[in-house]
Amino acid sequence: MQFKLTREFLENLREGISSGDKDVLAEMVNELHAADIAEILDELDLEEAISLYRILPGEKVSDVLVHLEEDVRDRFLESLTAKQIAEKLIGNLESDDAADVLGGLPEEKMEEVISLIRDLEQAKDIVDLLNYEEGTAGALMAKELIKVNENWTVTQCVTEIRRQAEYVDQVYTTYVVDDNNKLLGRISVKALLLSPDTRKISEMYASDIKLVKTSTSEEDVANMTQKYDLVVLPVVDELGRLVGRITVDDVVDVMIEEAERDYQMASGISEDVESTDSIWMLTRARMPWLLIGLMGGVFGAQVIERFEPALAKYAELAFFIPLIAAMGGNVGVQSSAIIVQGLANKSLGVESMFTKLKREFGVALLNGLILGLLILGYVLISNQSRELAFTVSISLVAVIIVAALFGTFVPLVLNRYKIDPALATGPFITTINDILGLLIYFLIGLSIYGFSL
Amino acid sequence: MQFKLTREFLENLREGISSGDKDVLAEMVNELHAADIAEILDELDLEEAISLYRILPGEKVSDVLVHLEEDVRDRFLESLTAKQIAEKLIGNLESDDAADVLGGLPEEKMEEVISLIRDLEQAKDIVDLLNYEEGTAGALMAKELIKVNENWTVTQCVTEIRRQAEYVDQVYTTYVVDDNNKLLGRISVKALLLSPDTRKISEMYASDIKLVKTSTSEEDVANMTQKYDLVVLPVVDELGRLVGRITVDDVVDVMIEEAERDYQMASGISEDVESTDSIWMLTRARMPWLLIGLMGGVFGAQVIERFEPALAKYAELAFFIPLIAAMGGNVGVQSSAIIVQGLANKSLGVESMFTKLKREFGVALLNGLILGLLILGYVLISNQSRELAFTVSISLVAVIIVAALFGTFVPLVLNRYKIDPALATGPFITTINDILGLLIYFLIGLSIYGFSL
Repeated sequence: MQFKLTREFLENLREGISSGDKDVLAEMVNELHAADIAEILDELDLEEAISLYRILPGEKVSDVLVHLEEDVRDRFLESLTAKQIAEKLIGNLESDDAADVLGGLPEEKMEEVISLIRDLEQAKDIVDLLNYEEGTAGALMAKELIKVNENWTVTQCVTEIRRQAEYVDQVYTTYVVDDNNKLLGRISVKALLLSPDTRKISEMYASDIKLVKTSTSEEDVANMTQKYDLVVLPVVDELGRLVGRITVDDVVDVMIEEAERDYQMASGISEDVESTDSIWMLTRARMPWLLIGLMGGVFGAQVIERFEPALAKYAELAFFIPLIAAMGGNVGVQSSAIIVQGLANKSLGVESMFTKLKREFGVALLNGLILGLLILGYVLISNQSRELAFTVSISLVAVIIVAALFGTFVPLVLNRYKIDPALATGPFITTINDILGLLIYFLIGLSIYGFSL
Repeated sequence: MQFKLTREFLENLREGISSGDKDVLAEMVNELHAADIAEILDELDLEEAISLYRILPGEKVSDVLVHLEEDVRDRFLESLTAKQIAEKLIGNLESDDAADVLGGLPEEKMEEVISLIRDLEQAKDIVDLLNYEEGTAGALMAKELIKVNENWTVTQCVTEIRRQAEYVDQVYTTYVVDDNNKLLGRISVKALLLSPDTRKISEMYASDIKLVKTSTSEEDVANMTQKYDLVVLPVVDELGRLVGRITVDDVVDVMIEEAERDYQMASGISEDVESTDSIWMLTRARMPWLLIGLMGGVFGAQVIERFEPALAKYAELAFFIPLIAAMGGNVGVQSSAIIVQGLANKSLGVESMFTKLKREFGVALLNGLILGLLILGYVLISNQSRELAFTVSISLVAVIIVAALFGTFVPLVLNRYKIDPALATGPFITTINDILGLLIYFLIGLSIYGFSL
């Protein structure tokens, strides 16, 4: 039932493209969903993709375009003239998709395309949408929606919905507005179906409606959609007038993007990349965090160098350097990840930072004591010196507590200053905790071995 | 507009609860959305929560219950008798929510509740749903949906939708079935609104419908929903008969859960915890990975111990132990994260594992050479020995390449054997790369310093 892209399919398709057999190609792709065709195009070279794109039926090309990956889409659009874009593509798109597509064009070409759009109403909608700031509800919404006046009857309302429905792809919710277009509430298809024809809308609409302003951030839109199980969310301007609606499919994309960004941050990847991207892009996305790691390693080396005399005398101190560094890093990442995730899904509750640090201290102390006892036992039974055993176990407890508090504190503070707390996860926190851990380890070691610098 | 839970609000509410002033309480919460009330209850003690729950208007209690966090909900249900659950709660829920709620009860109480449900049709639906395996479309779907027969006319269809709509909370899509209940397609509200009354459904329904089987995994449901921008997805049995539907709000929950699970794995947290959970739960969630880290550290110590004679002579070798370990870990996590994310969002494309490893080798070589040259320069200008400079830089290049290949290979192999590839991220890959890194570093060091074990 569901299409699954395979290597065989791609090979057959490539053969069809190079032999120029349009009928075979049409047969292979015409029945597919636009999203599947887009997936295929993402895998092809630009030239192959353009050949395939040319044979697609006219009504499908716009939909396929919307589903393409952004970089592939932009390259595609480069190969088309402004006239082709305006006439063959934009006309069939909803306003939000059209604005997305145009937003990827160079300024000049964008203006040319807009001037060539025949439907002036659509051109106006697109220009409106392009003006909203990226990352807000305004930039996410579409203009197409169905609305009725509170003073109408059910019959008038159904007639009007029928008329408006011709211009809207899918009827989600019918909004109720007053004479000034101020959003009052919504009326469900179910209510219309079950009510007598002459009843007035003002007597039957639901006013407990969730809405956002054009300036609401897309994160808040996503959180509301999830919390209240919404399928569509109306957007109003500062005066409460209905200006657009956001559907759940666009919100899902926002959620996925956010989750992926947090995940990549935690893994030390600084740009949105995929495993199929070029070597150069992948290197660029990873280099920043590796440089931070390298600098951290250099600082670590300087810390250890300060203790060289001790090391030269007691080489055994070096054995547990990786353990201390790794545990500090692990604990720090765990602590910061719980905070970052709590901030993202708003599950931190209302307790104060102090309460959180207190609980985190408890967790770290418990973890530290368990692990400290384990390592104390191990070092003692493995015939190492008692000095080493105490140095390792005591500094492990200390490092775990410091790393946990640090990992909790930093993302909370970043968040308070409106900096993305996800920055605190991954290599950043690991690196700092590495260095702190080494300092703690050697200082405790010196005092236990009775060695002075 | 949107409710925001604050500490002041909670304090006022607690006062109202302890003073027993029901009117004040009712005024504070009755206008709120069920999801907001659930958020408040999640913050209260069980006793306070039960007092507040008691004054909620009857039609709201079920909705609030559905929005509670699972552990809070289960404790709540413990305080109610089977009769109360069956009569006051279950009756108002959709079948999927009812099955979720019942699934959290102990076996015996669950059976008692089911036997007490008055609406036999609902009881049957719930029992059906409870039988599907967790994590499949069957367990995710609800039974409530609107369907019409292909042989009906538009008028018959509208009448029937009106009748069925009374039992369904929200009309998403109307499905078209044949006489055997086999799913044929869907008909949109828009099409019904725009068609003449006597037209037959069989002439106008859309057959290009996306559907899943009851056995489809929830991951596949989520991927389909996102890819095809679906709002609702019909579910059929092995014979293609329509048995339920999955709405996007439930799919969103699945997506968020999956993303959070992957994120927690990458951060070394083994259970689904929140920062407000108890110290004991938080410790339990973190201990497994810390133990792995500890064992890794112990192996690392054994590796270094083997090289003690070299270290005793050249203590400077210890300086860069943290750098080598950290860089191996960082590169490994980066490589595995890109694969894990690609597997999750199906963006790996169709290329073979060999192609991936080849590209990863290229990325690692490029990263390694850049970082290796940087560290070579640093060590040389910081007045360290040339032996140390070459040992650090050469082993850094080697470690980066090994860690990258390992980080790519492991999740791909895990995935091939149907093990969650996210296991390969976080502390696991870091720990193994730490040890490999140390081995490489010291072996290269020995050969450069001309020292033998």
